[in-house]
Amino acid sequence: MKIIVLKFGGTSVGSIQRIKKVAKIIKSYSKNYRVIVLSSAMSGTTNNLIKMSQKISENFPDNEYDTLVSAGEQISCSLLAGQLLSNGIKSRSWMGWQVPILTEGKHKFSRIKYINRTKILKFLKSGGIPIIAGFQGVDKKLNITTIGRGGSDSSAIMVAKFFKADRCVIYTDVEGIYTTDPNKLNSAKKIQNISYEEMLEMASLGSKVMQPDSIQDARLNRINIEVKSSFVHKKGTLITKRKNIVNNKIITGISSTDNDAKVTLLGVKDRPGIAASIFKPLSQNSINVDMVVQNISSDGKETDLTFTIKSYDLNKTKKLINKNKKISFKKMIFDKNVSKVSIIGVGMITTPGVTFRMFQALARKNINIQVISTSEIKISVLIKKRNVIKAIKCLHQEFNLDK
Amino acid sequence: MKIIVLKFGGTSVGSIQRIKKVAKIIKSYSKNYRVIVLSSAMSGTTNNLIKMSQKISENFPDNEYDTLVSAGEQISCSLLAGQLLSNGIKSRSWMGWQVPILTEGKHKFSRIKYINRTKILKFLKSGGIPIIAGFQGVDKKLNITTIGRGGSDSSAIMVAKFFKADRCVIYTDVEGIYTTDPNKLNSAKKIQNISYEEMLEMASLGSKVMQPDSIQDARLNRINIEVKSSFVHKKGTLITKRKNIVNNKIITGISSTDNDAKVTLLGVKDRPGIAASIFKPLSQNSINVDMVVQNISSDGKETDLTFTIKSYDLNKTKKLINKNKKISFKKMIFDKNVSKVSIIGVGMITTPGVTFRMFQALARKNINIQVISTSEIKISVLIKKRNVIKAIKCLHQEFNLDK
Repeated sequence: MKIIVLKFGGTSVGSIQRIKKVAKIIKSYSKNYRVIVLSSAMSGTTNNLIKMSQKISENFPDNEYDTLVSAGEQISCSLLAGQLLSNGIKSRSWMGWQVPILTEGKHKFSRIKYINRTKILKFLKSGGIPIIAGFQGVDKKLNITTIGRGGSDSSAIMVAKFFKADRCVIYTDVEGIYTTDPNKLNSAKKIQNISYEEMLEMASLGSKVMQPDSIQDARLNRINIEVKSSFVHKKGTLITKRKNIVNNKIITGISSTDNDAKVTLLGVKDRPGIAASIFKPLSQNSINVDMVVQNISSDGKETDLTFTIKSYDLNKTKKLINKNKKISFKKMIFDKNVSKVSIIGVGMITTPGVTFRMFQALARKNINIQVISTSEIKISVLIKKRNVIKAIKCLHQEFNLDK
Repeated sequence: MKIIVLKFGGTSVGSIQRIKKVAKIIKSYSKNYRVIVLSSAMSGTTNNLIKMSQKISENFPDNEYDTLVSAGEQISCSLLAGQLLSNGIKSRSWMGWQVPILTEGKHKFSRIKYINRTKILKFLKSGGIPIIAGFQGVDKKLNITTIGRGGSDSSAIMVAKFFKADRCVIYTDVEGIYTTDPNKLNSAKKIQNISYEEMLEMASLGSKVMQPDSIQDARLNRINIEVKSSFVHKKGTLITKRKNIVNNKIITGISSTDNDAKVTLLGVKDRPGIAASIFKPLSQNSINVDMVVQNISSDGKETDLTFTIKSYDLNKTKKLINKNKKISFKKMIFDKNVSKVSIIGVGMITTPGVTFRMFQALARKNINIQVISTSEIKISVLIKKRNVIKAIKCLHQEFNLDK
């Protein structure tokens, strides 16, 4: 029988009522699959634990932080296994150290290195449904570690990889991935199938359903992911490899950001390597520079340079640039009232003129484009923040996503 | 350097403020001792977890129960270790499976069999203070198990045993062991020293400070226990072996019970082995028969039998006796308005006339004695519940415990 991995997020197991519902969902799969379940902590639990640790210290030690917060999954998983057992279904909770799920890297930001299959396989073969704690593992010294980015999603995908699962279903509180944020556009439509690459662009550009790292893990291991809601019984979105997707749309989705800031340096003394001199100290301070535009200097001596960063990095960026002795410029200006709007779709690879259509559609609505950046399957533009909804709406129509 | 074990109960670590206070207490020992700390869950946590499990099922599975509730100590111990680290003190939390603390016996009622000393000793020698989760261990298959009776106290005493600790300090929310319940008698005095044997009688007869099983573990392993408060800085009560105690009092303490019931069978057809026929089915159903009195039958044919049980066992007892075909009797009467009052003291072994003084003191207050039972260091009487306070008061005076 094929193996399926079901992962339930915090809101899906957020109360005893929800746990009872989740137990029914799990049972519905058990006829056709050997089921492995991964669970997050009940929503609220992790935050409460973190709040307590912060009352002790803003710099609560990382190793104890991992031990502390991983208690959250211990609670949700034992409750869920207890619920299944009470329903007459053979089940058992497994903490990261019991499987064991071996991690490497530092506390709070570990990554799963290896999952021992022996005990879980034996339990599956005996007809049991293992409930594995997401978000946690142990290092080789048996310290509890937590999975930094992607958390329980990442755990689920790695379990799917090591057990060669047929599919990994991510149960959450949204019905799937949408063509754009439904809170910003009513006519946003649920996407049936999306490629890993498109999903990566959607995720890193603002869609908050899954962490980019988890999607990348799934892509590298060719694991089909279905994202769906544990609250309503509806088909979700399948994230899979490109060639599994039959799609007549050029664009799959539109994303936008809320927390970008634009920095412009006017009258920068131009010389080879000047951009590197500006960006190196930012990079060394973990400031991520996103879009970059450099004007051609008219006389070969001075140039204007524009780039975007996350707005919470703005003050740090200003300080770093002002104390940077390797560069000279006349004036620095910045703007927090900007947003990046992106159209994403593998269809654009084989379809010429997509950029033109995007620019034309925005121009028709008098939306001015400040910066442009493109990749193989994505076109991003920086516009005034107040134009974001208007831009999403006109692009959604232009590329037939309303239908 | 000598090793000391400090155990903190749920109220002692019941809030972040309390944890900060406990960290200071721990530090105060670290100059003169190598310190090992055992902690319970924060007060309220365990009950909340149990309540959630009961919403799932009144018969929540024992193995998942153990995993569930042991999350409580994981939270308190990581917070406490984090607090010490934030205070600049080398510390680390250790879950039962990390030490490991090996248990045997069934879930919810396990007992500690073996504690591996390697890692903890290494940590102690490096100057660290280990914070070990109380109440939990693992069986040889790495299932999480909890310590049935005595819980975290039992964990502390077993740690003291395996690490050959000089002393075990049980920090709680009372200042020590009292001559009698201070809620019942204002003039109750804190006992400075008490023997294991006396403490066992005090504990099993109603004093709720420590579980009898923990005291028995301490007695068997000759571990000195100090019971004291983490809320006030005062000397507590030392529980130790008899010969360490210099005490000029005959009686060490007085205890009373609140939940006894008296059952009397009138006109029981007498024959050899009749008592066994009555009590066997009760014992088989885990009903504990405490005091027993059998009248001499005047004609050798009929007798009256009186015994006490816990009042919550009364209905079950009535049913078992009524369906017992091996016995015949005329009438069964019962009384829930009774209490057992006991005087306890190793001094009575070498002092004649204690029983007489007790009976005389009660008689002077017109308190009627219904049933009597005695052991080497204890005399118990069953009296009307409404007379309990009066009885405790007059016995407290009679045996000079007020001073």
